[in-house]
Amino acid sequence: MKNYTFGIDIGGTNIKMGLFKITRFELIEKIEIPTPNIDHATTIFDAVIHLANEFLDKHGITYDEILGFGFAIPCPVKHGYVDVCPNLHWRNIDVIQAMQNRVPDHVKVVVSNDANIAAYGENESLDIPHNNAIFYTLGTGVGGGIIVEGEIIEGRTGAGGEIGHMPIFETNEICGCGKSGCLEQVCGTKAILNQARRLIPYSQTILKSEHLKVKSIFDAAKHNDSVGLKVIDEMGKYIGLSASILAVSLDPDVIIIGGGIAQAGDILLNSIKKHYQQYARFNTINVPIVLAKTGNDAGIIGAARYSMKA
Amino acid sequence: MKNYTFGIDIGGTNIKMGLFKITRFELIEKIEIPTPNIDHATTIFDAVIHLANEFLDKHGITYDEILGFGFAIPCPVKHGYVDVCPNLHWRNIDVIQAMQNRVPDHVKVVVSNDANIAAYGENESLDIPHNNAIFYTLGTGVGGGIIVEGEIIEGRTGAGGEIGHMPIFETNEICGCGKSGCLEQVCGTKAILNQARRLIPYSQTILKSEHLKVKSIFDAAKHNDSVGLKVIDEMGKYIGLSASILAVSLDPDVIIIGGGIAQAGDILLNSIKKHYQQYARFNTINVPIVLAKTGNDAGIIGAARYSMKA
Repeated sequence: MKNYTFGIDIGGTNIKMGLFKITRFELIEKIEIPTPNIDHATTIFDAVIHLANEFLDKHGITYDEILGFGFAIPCPVKHGYVDVCPNLHWRNIDVIQAMQNRVPDHVKVVVSNDANIAAYGENESLDIPHNNAIFYTLGTGVGGGIIVEGEIIEGRTGAGGEIGHMPIFETNEICGCGKSGCLEQVCGTKAILNQARRLIPYSQTILKSEHLKVKSIFDAAKHNDSVGLKVIDEMGKYIGLSASILAVSLDPDVIIIGGGIAQAGDILLNSIKKHYQQYARFNTINVPIVLAKTGNDAGIIGAARYSMKA
Repeated sequence: MKNYTFGIDIGGTNIKMGLFKITRFELIEKIEIPTPNIDHATTIFDAVIHLANEFLDKHGITYDEILGFGFAIPCPVKHGYVDVCPNLHWRNIDVIQAMQNRVPDHVKVVVSNDANIAAYGENESLDIPHNNAIFYTLGTGVGGGIIVEGEIIEGRTGAGGEIGHMPIFETNEICGCGKSGCLEQVCGTKAILNQARRLIPYSQTILKSEHLKVKSIFDAAKHNDSVGLKVIDEMGKYIGLSASILAVSLDPDVIIIGGGIAQAGDILLNSIKKHYQQYARFNTINVPIVLAKTGNDAGIIGAARYSMKA
């Protein structure tokens, strides 16, 4: 019986790994280690196997009971293959092949981009998983993933779901992607702080430009602070607009808002919903917009769930 | 041997039907009849069977040689089912069931929305069909279809691919969909004519506001007429922008421009490409943008090709 599966989130700084019991999808144990920084490809896969063996020994589990390894990788991934991953210094890495060489044949290996994996996992973690989901991950960067008929949209090069770089407004400022007007330029951490700092000198506010944090802005908004409310309204506007564009194009069942910034909770969610309603057309006006559930473990949960996909 | 298949394009005004030879995908014969306007569901399916039998008799073909019937329907279609189709006065019609009741069991029945069928057919008609395609149909209305990994994106309610109603610019004018800022409001026939009429009084132009036709505007543009060029530039801007939004979200292999207005040809295509390049991010800047090939028979060709889908 395949009772267990692994979810692994490979980041540029840390590797997170979890062992999950498949029945009732229970996290048995997780660990976080620094990402090895020499001879990255080989060392990372060896480190994963080393951690897996430790978990198995500790819990008295054999490989016969392991369904698979799911991986979340911080770059485009197409059919398990990575062309270039700057964060990991990878080039031309076949993740599936590399792992299959290290585990028994019956063990399944699946892999996708980290935001796409989070999209898959957050949808599967809803009370009722849907067939068609659009997922936003809001943080330092803004990313996302699109699920259609239960499948991650990887696209031509594995870059599907890069919705943080949808051109969505006019500006002369250049985004990290080299173009301008990206959603990330109004909803990423830096944009949120800049927007607040622009407003503070001209507003009645409890916020101060020095040592400003995103959380302070959202907390202020919850106390009806004018700057906090304006920042959240601006975020809601552009996320709502972008979601309405994707919704009329893809006709999804659900829109899920995740990432660290989504911890702002209902105040942000309600702002997104309000603006979305104004922009949405046809039946897409009824698409539910919900907060993601899994929090910091989105990567390992999504990766483990992806390994369980039929 | 299943050597033949039918493609049927059901419109509010006419029904077009073609018999295709599968080898080398050859149109054997086509016919166009007015759409029956009483007891629509039953009469339409009976009319289709009647035409099919006439084709079969004429060409000495039996149902044993027929692979299937593909249908294009002018409304959202989900898994062969139509909730409401105002153009056909249909409610709760199971197209697949209705046709299966009228043909031998081995005959395959497939159906989807007309723009989605055109998207499928135009992609399959390219020299090299792609897995991931975004299709625009430009005409009185602006619509489209999205193909991901060879499958039409129907979405939750069958309304996937309604890209003509992406909110893409700010305006107070209300679109037929009840909202504002739709792509159709800058690129549909009416918008093109209005835009030219606004420019004509203030421009050196050979165009006149009376009896103005879209074709005259494009013809004028080909002779460097300032109004014609401005209209095409505006269309290229918004189609290019919308395509770049879809491209960064879906990472397609190709973007296909079809519909009657696409007969403007290279002058429109080049304008779209120019603006797309400015807006496109990452690798999506390399996505080819091409004109659709099948012209007026897009519906029956797409429907027939969809019936041939593995």
